Amino acid sequence: MGSKSPETEHPVKALGYAARDTSGVLSPINFSRRETGDEDVRFKVLYCGVCHSDLHSVRNEWHNAKYPMIPGHEIVGVVTEVGSKVKKVKVGDKVGVGCMVGCCHSCDQCGADQEQYCPKMVQTYNDSSMVTYGGYSDHMVANEHFIVTWPKDYPLDGGAPLLCAGITVYSPIRYYGLDKPGMHVGVVGLGGLGHVAVKFLKALGVKVTVISTSPEKKEEAINTFGADSFLVSRDQAQMQSGVGSMDGIIDTVSADHPLVPLIALLKPNGKLVLVGGPTKPYELPAFPLLFGRKMVGGSLIGGIKETQEMIEFAAKHNITAAIELIPIEYINTAMERLAKTDVRYRFVIDIGNTLKAA
Amino acid sequence: MGSKSPETEHPVKALGYAARDTSGVLSPINFSRRETGDEDVRFKVLYCGVCHSDLHSVRNEWHNAKYPMIPGHEIVGVVTEVGSKVKKVKVGDKVGVGCMVGCCHSCDQCGADQEQYCPKMVQTYNDSSMVTYGGYSDHMVANEHFIVTWPKDYPLDGGAPLLCAGITVYSPIRYYGLDKPGMHVGVVGLGGLGHVAVKFLKALGVKVTVISTSPEKKEEAINTFGADSFLVSRDQAQMQSGVGSMDGIIDTVSADHPLVPLIALLKPNGKLVLVGGPTKPYELPAFPLLFGRKMVGGSLIGGIKETQEMIEFAAKHNITAAIELIPIEYINTAMERLAKTDVRYRFVIDIGNTLKAA
Repeated sequence: MGSKSPETEHPVKALGYAARDTSGVLSPINFSRRETGDEDVRFKVLYCGVCHSDLHSVRNEWHNAKYPMIPGHEIVGVVTEVGSKVKKVKVGDKVGVGCMVGCCHSCDQCGADQEQYCPKMVQTYNDSSMVTYGGYSDHMVANEHFIVTWPKDYPLDGGAPLLCAGITVYSPIRYYGLDKPGMHVGVVGLGGLGHVAVKFLKALGVKVTVISTSPEKKEEAINTFGADSFLVSRDQAQMQSGVGSMDGIIDTVSADHPLVPLIALLKPNGKLVLVGGPTKPYELPAFPLLFGRKMVGGSLIGGIKETQEMIEFAAKHNITAAIELIPIEYINTAMERLAKTDVRYRFVIDIGNTLKAA
Repeated sequence: MGSKSPETEHPVKALGYAARDTSGVLSPINFSRRETGDEDVRFKVLYCGVCHSDLHSVRNEWHNAKYPMIPGHEIVGVVTEVGSKVKKVKVGDKVGVGCMVGCCHSCDQCGADQEQYCPKMVQTYNDSSMVTYGGYSDHMVANEHFIVTWPKDYPLDGGAPLLCAGITVYSPIRYYGLDKPGMHVGVVGLGGLGHVAVKFLKALGVKVTVISTSPEKKEEAINTFGADSFLVSRDQAQMQSGVGSMDGIIDTVSADHPLVPLIALLKPNGKLVLVGGPTKPYELPAFPLLFGRKMVGGSLIGGIKETQEMIEFAAKHNITAAIELIPIEYINTAMERLAKTDVRYRFVIDIGNTLKAA
């Protein structure tokens, strides 16, 4: 395919917000999207979550930015047009698109509904193999395979972040078997991912301990999100009190931090699951893993089938992200605040009401 | 319990080989063992394997040595006396003792037949909580719980090393599910542990690739032990050819080495299992684990029930360690050679024929 891309055959005008360079500053952009193909779903974007990846990406902190870049992969809206072969949805339905818009459909991973590990997975924006534009835009078009149908009466704004933040924690909770009632699971970092992880785990009947550098988040962790207990990671006495007590840990932190104190919190056979991506390697001594048969694993978002399951689970259990709804004009301020982790707990852009042609 | 120990109440004279200081030099020692308790099995030692741990321990490389130290935890022999309550064996039976001689019998790990992770596990020699002496000695006494019964016609000398080296690789192959016919599993390091891992995996119908720094081991890996292929870990082109091909890896290497090239060999959902213990921490970047949902786990020997299962599996499939049988007088030379990894693939001491009072 090379550089060929649907986005370069662009008969349909669109409006978005794009970063133009590594400053990451976002401003309005007129661009275009492809026509609605036979298997495509086109929808008007109503809300789009602001993921920490968006910040890394627009500032080229992962060294793979292509400009202009229109970020956003927590996208929800209402269907306006469907291709002739589309079966999943009809015009007027509420839908979502997460982090992926393409895959090979023929490898082992695609066959196992794990498109996120397909070597040809296409990212919703800033893809490496073709030009893709994300959800900071007035409308979206995607193959129906990547469309998540929205549960009836489930909030669009508070639900949008679950398309990335939610599935990123839901998938490893299931895959690593940390979903059994009565288990004790730690959640490291109470941010966009962490607070949703607490809600999922509590809905599954799991005892949850939040592990955070921020003592001031204790009250909210327990009283608002329902965590059972809270450990300040920099307080050695508190951490010592939790040694050997956890079946697993979901570590959502992308800043550099030591793993050994977390491994110590695990019971024998415990699992430490990383979903954040610090730039520096962790230090991992062997003995803490050997004595207790512990493991450190990773996980990346989740497949489309599992994302659908996750959204339905969230709707059933009234789980949404705690959001701060912002107009699109506020996005650069929001990014500045996000860089300082000054958000509780996810910015969501009110695209439908605020993104309009000048 | 404190410093109380059966070995300090010592009516039964015994002869062994002990290290007296951090030189690690071993020499004859007269010592004593406890009487045969109601649940105890006493046996004449015939063979004892020389584990790399013995070398680390006698030289105090793990900073926990207590002298005099009588090493050895791959011990086999013939029962000479049993306590009144012993049901497992009778006088004349062939038996073995591995790395453990005690545990609490009441914790979750003991309840799950994973005594090796019991916080009160007692090591066969150089235990931290009480005085214990290992198998470089003319006889042994242990609670019957820790006695492995020996399969009929299964070699004592070639089988002895399986009590540590064998179970150390067998247990993670089973626990991490790397035992399915048709899987592809890598074995890093073709030493005492690695060559037995290859044999177990082949008996299970698994495709095996040995990954080693030593190209000269290729022929033996394939023609003698039955490995399907061989990668020289320092040859980037060879390593590149294996990228993304393995369901799991058993890493037996205790020298410092990088994990990232090994993680790259794994398929999505692949598992890298560490059973060696380098002194320096590994470097573990997050992204190679996230992209592909891979994990790095540890494993330490195995429980008694699983050790019995392992020995029976080995006997059924004619699996023994490749050994070099040595007289006890050769032990210091053997240790020197072991320090240079100059052994193919396990020294076993012929205790029965060579350890005698002067």
